[in-house]
Amino acid sequence: MSTVRVSTPGGSYPIHIEAGRLERLADSIPHDATAIAIVTNRTVAAHYGERARRALAQTGLRVILIELPDGEAYKDWQTLNLIFDALLQNRFDRRSVLLALGGGVVGDVCGFAAATYMRGIRFVQAPTTLLAQVDSSVGGKTAVNHPLGKNMVGAFYQPVAVDIDTDVLNTLPPREISAGLAEVIKYGLIIDAEFFAWCEQNVAALRALEPAAMTYAIRRSCELKALVVSQDERETGLRAILNFGHTFGHAIEAGLGFGTWLHGEAVGCGMVQAAELSAATLGLSSDSVDRVRNLVEAIGCPTQAPDLGAARWIDLMQVDKKTEAGQLRFILLPRIGQAVFQSVPAAALQAVLGKTVVPSL
Amino acid sequence: MSTVRVSTPGGSYPIHIEAGRLERLADSIPHDATAIAIVTNRTVAAHYGERARRALAQTGLRVILIELPDGEAYKDWQTLNLIFDALLQNRFDRRSVLLALGGGVVGDVCGFAAATYMRGIRFVQAPTTLLAQVDSSVGGKTAVNHPLGKNMVGAFYQPVAVDIDTDVLNTLPPREISAGLAEVIKYGLIIDAEFFAWCEQNVAALRALEPAAMTYAIRRSCELKALVVSQDERETGLRAILNFGHTFGHAIEAGLGFGTWLHGEAVGCGMVQAAELSAATLGLSSDSVDRVRNLVEAIGCPTQAPDLGAARWIDLMQVDKKTEAGQLRFILLPRIGQAVFQSVPAAALQAVLGKTVVPSL
Ligand SMILES: NC(=O)c1ccc[n+]([C@@H]2O[C@H](COP(=O)([O-])OP(=O)(O)OC[C@H]3O[C@@H](n4cnc5c(N)ncnc54)[C@H](O)[C@@H]3O)[C@@H](O)[C@H]2O)c1
Ligand SMILES: NC(=O)c1ccc[n+]([C@@H]2O[C@H](COP(=O)([O-])OP(=O)(O)OC[C@H]3O[C@@H](n4cnc5c(N)ncnc54)[C@H](O)[C@@H]3O)[C@@H](O)[C@H]2O)c1
Ligand SMILES: [Zn+2]
Ligand SMILES: [Zn+2]
Repeated sequence: MSTVRVSTPGGSYPIHIEAGRLERLADSIPHDATAIAIVTNRTVAAHYGERARRALAQTGLRVILIELPDGEAYKDWQTLNLIFDALLQNRFDRRSVLLALGGGVVGDVCGFAAATYMRGIRFVQAPTTLLAQVDSSVGGKTAVNHPLGKNMVGAFYQPVAVDIDTDVLNTLPPREISAGLAEVIKYGLIIDAEFFAWCEQNVAALRALEPAAMTYAIRRSCELKALVVSQDERETGLRAILNFGHTFGHAIEAGLGFGTWLHGEAVGCGMVQAAELSAATLGLSSDSVDRVRNLVEAIGCPTQAPDLGAARWIDLMQVDKKTEAGQLRFILLPRIGQAVFQSVPAAALQAVLGKTVVPSL
Repeated sequence: MSTVRVSTPGGSYPIHIEAGRLERLADSIPHDATAIAIVTNRTVAAHYGERARRALAQTGLRVILIELPDGEAYKDWQTLNLIFDALLQNRFDRRSVLLALGGGVVGDVCGFAAATYMRGIRFVQAPTTLLAQVDSSVGGKTAVNHPLGKNMVGAFYQPVAVDIDTDVLNTLPPREISAGLAEVIKYGLIIDAEFFAWCEQNVAALRALEPAAMTYAIRRSCELKALVVSQDERETGLRAILNFGHTFGHAIEAGLGFGTWLHGEAVGCGMVQAAELSAATLGLSSDSVDRVRNLVEAIGCPTQAPDLGAARWIDLMQVDKKTEAGQLRFILLPRIGQAVFQSVPAAALQAVLGKTVVPSL
């Protein structure tokens, strides 16, 4: 078993990474817990609900299972209320514990429920998608969507533990694996050039879910995310670099309608665009841009952006939560393994859009 | 002007207390703010909305006013969403600031909106009821109600400043003044016997809103609450003493239907009951019990509890959020000025209910 430690002002906790970790979930429940609710969705419950329930029953505590509908469309207040209803009907008190069993949607909603039920109870993350294992379960961002914007209502709230079972990736659709790998290579690009090179060399093993390669990729991703988050829990500065590729990516997701491309696919393509913008404004070498494009392609993500119309592109990028006082800023790479946050001339942005967007005929 | 400082792990901030403070609200807005939303309700807006807007316009920032419906019945998710809608429609970003102008309902809802909009933006409390000035605006508890329980969804989230204008109490109905005074004398009872004696001596001046007396009572209350909260922001121990009288009080509020008695009225009566229970179990002198009853009466709150039926009384007290693993515990006074938290024999509780409840004929 690998363990990575996360330390933030809001809490310090272990990330356990191992094959079969679901069987040992009881180890992550605090000793003074009074009851446990597994929060999951229908799809994940069908695969792993019973296994998680049996493992948690070893604590001797009452365990209930709260099954949410599956999908980003349900990441909203109504779904959150399903959790509150179940907790109150079952008289869950302040010492009860939630366990998020699922992808980023379940993790974000369950985390926000934990942050706000009785002003905060403890929760454990048991992420079951690659994206959730390397990204959303670590760092304490929780949220639901609002009709006027994604993740607009939420909290910074850390789990008491993250339990990653690498075995569960075997039931995940390949497209979701590719999307998760986009976030993996993102860490290499913004902070660890060696890890990026390692990903280039091991991309076939990763796509084949080869256990040793996958475990290392997850561990290194968690370490790098933990490093960033421990220095800036609330995204007042450094943490913004984790959004590399995301301003372009969000525009794609919103422009095509959320769910058309997976988040990771949009980020993959967005990283290629951000690399081009880095070349245009910071002198990132064309060789490096090629490496980014080639690896995004090799993990199975698109590298050519959809044609949303130039004005619409700019507009959609402006809605991004990272905008401040209306100014458009980007995470850019002076070189692979290093990221900076800065505003760019409109002309450079236009040129990059011209170059990376596939004109629709 | 009096200033009291609150220091908690979640934030350190000043409480400014002075007549006419509303005119100087601009002083409490952080220098890097990008926009301000005044969150208030219809009643308060009619009295003070324009004055607050003019004062905040001195910052040179955009100021919008969000007017909520008035009443505890609106302390819910729908009302919270009115705030999110307005903030998103007006493109408020992470550096925008909310100002809660109103009583405890506005403060709790606005505080929770600030805690969760974009995972947390800054907010200022400008409490306009006595209860909000001496209690709810200080300490960072925010919440909305759920159909299955009051304040069940919320967050611990500290304001950046509290601005108390003692002048606004002049438009407050006398019943609300009495209810607020119940929380004032509560601080004396649990932590400061001298302050309790001062309240006994100055009760006429307080009820007449005599400025010097009122300013002192507010300041001392804020100091005492700040003292408790700074030692236990998240109510894991000591902070529970602030609930003196509240287990009985909540049963009255819920039993009669919320709003029949004001919260402070129910707490006033609940403190008399808790004093009786302290006499029965901890030997609080009958002289002290009389002093509690006399002062609760003198501030204009009821001292005799309604007849809800003995079984219903116990049932309602058990629903209280302070219950843990089903055990009924009370804040009790060994003497005036000191509080402890402990469980009591059922027989003692029955006896006190028999003594303090007015049988309906
Ligand atoms: N909190 C953060 O820091 C953070 C970071 C990135 C993304 N996110 C959020 O995460 C969400 C996306 O997460 P996601 O990509 O995991 O999507 P998801 O949660 O929707 O999961 C994708 C699909 O895979 C299914 N699934 C999950 N585990 C499975 C398994 N083991 N086998 C088979 N099917 C499985 C799910 O039911 C779902 O249909 C977005 O809402 C995004 O905003 C949050
Ligand atoms: N957060 C905490 O720590 C905390 C502590 C105690 C109570 N509370 C909460 O506070 C709420 C009760 O607060 P409240 O007693 O202030 O009630 P409230 O907010 O409903 O105000 C009472 C009434 O007075 C009106 N009003 C307010 N200021 C006025 C003024 N200056 N002149 C004329 N009318 C005015 C209001 O519109 C309302 O009709 C409850 O929801 C309770 O749960 C919170
Ligand atoms: Zn992402
Ligand atoms: Zn109270």
